[in-house]
Amino acid sequence: MAKDMTLLWGSGSPPCWRVMIALEEKNLQGYNQKLLSFEKMEHKSQQVLDMNPRGQLPSFKHGNNILNESFAACLYLESQFKSQGTKLIPDGAAEQALMYQRMFEGVTLAEKMANVIYYNWKVPEGERHDSALKRNREALVTELKLWEGYLQKLGAGSYMAGKNFSMADVIVFPSVAYIFRFGLSPERYPKLAEYFALLKERPSIKGTWPPHWLENPQNQDTLKDL
Amino acid sequence: MAKDMTLLWGSGSPPCWRVMIALEEKNLQGYNQKLLSFEKMEHKSQQVLDMNPRGQLPSFKHGNNILNESFAACLYLESQFKSQGTKLIPDGAAEQALMYQRMFEGVTLAEKMANVIYYNWKVPEGERHDSALKRNREALVTELKLWEGYLQKLGAGSYMAGKNFSMADVIVFPSVAYIFRFGLSPERYPKLAEYFALLKERPSIKGTWPPHWLENPQNQDTLKDL
Repeated sequence: MAKDMTLLWGSGSPPCWRVMIALEEKNLQGYNQKLLSFEKMEHKSQQVLDMNPRGQLPSFKHGNNILNESFAACLYLESQFKSQGTKLIPDGAAEQALMYQRMFEGVTLAEKMANVIYYNWKVPEGERHDSALKRNREALVTELKLWEGYLQKLGAGSYMAGKNFSMADVIVFPSVAYIFRFGLSPERYPKLAEYFALLKERPSIKGTWPPHWLENPQNQDTLKDL
Repeated sequence: MAKDMTLLWGSGSPPCWRVMIALEEKNLQGYNQKLLSFEKMEHKSQQVLDMNPRGQLPSFKHGNNILNESFAACLYLESQFKSQGTKLIPDGAAEQALMYQRMFEGVTLAEKMANVIYYNWKVPEGERHDSALKRNREALVTELKLWEGYLQKLGAGSYMAGKNFSMADVIVFPSVAYIFRFGLSPERYPKLAEYFALLKERPSIKGTWPPHWLENPQNQDTLKDL
């Protein structure tokens, strides 16, 4: 089915993981794929640049159609394979509104997370400030409390936009997994921890778990004091 | 028709402008709206916070459905009013892929633009570095050259994702308008300038032009040397 698709990806990258989860949910197994190493700078290789002038992963192709932005790839897959696999965008106006709203708040969650976890990677040494990192950490706490509140309001056993798994989960779950990987306290964020526990056993997610996390299951402690 | 919709917005904000263009394109005139002032911090007023816990504009409501993220609001409007007004998401796989891809590359364009235009606003005084602003400006040049190339490849008179106006234009045009407002040279970026000239006369865009730009049509020169 999916032999006309190619995915170039990196282990643990939330954008790559989103596309992999969407492919599984839409029953698009059997696509061509290649795991590349960010450390070895393989995302800047000619193979990637031929598909993606930005030199980023994921790089994704369906036939001649190129979708390198993870949100674009996920929405395209849902649209082109609407009746196949999991329905990721609900039809009902209220459910759909909440789904889109949370899906795009996911951009902010990912950004605020990256501003802490990747601070040293993003900011050259001479430009780093403790005050900036402190502010980024506070902004991430505010952000996480918002999401904790969203889940609280939805009630136990909920997905990110209600009773059903949706595109909001495809987009947001990899960030949530990342945050716990980097040591967030399940005790201080119990609803996010419950959400994480519910989704990590889902086949589309379990089957696409970042291979280097499997090899080294030990969490890091960057976020343990948040 | 749109009496059950409310938009709280700020003049010149690309995310607000996107929603206003989408509403026009979907023939959803007559919605309730209120222009708020960022300078007076009205985006942190109780009226906004009641709809949007982030205290940001746009804040948008359709009945009881809240869509504060501009991408969410635009996709929701297209989905809920699919057969009304302009078709913003093409059905054909190739056209749709290019539309989604450019639409979400629009996130990066907006971000790289903000990193230059709002540098002093985003970064507290003691944390500013000429080296960072220089790098941000270089990143914006690289970004603008990508878009210039995209338009070059599509040929004269093209919209952002081909021969028809689409959601990619709803999302990307406000950033392009912003960049010229802040002084980008039409001579050095002729394709972007041509695109800007083509779209600025479109009724949905002309009719929603930021009121404070109309009052003060003089461009600023922040980007004139890019």
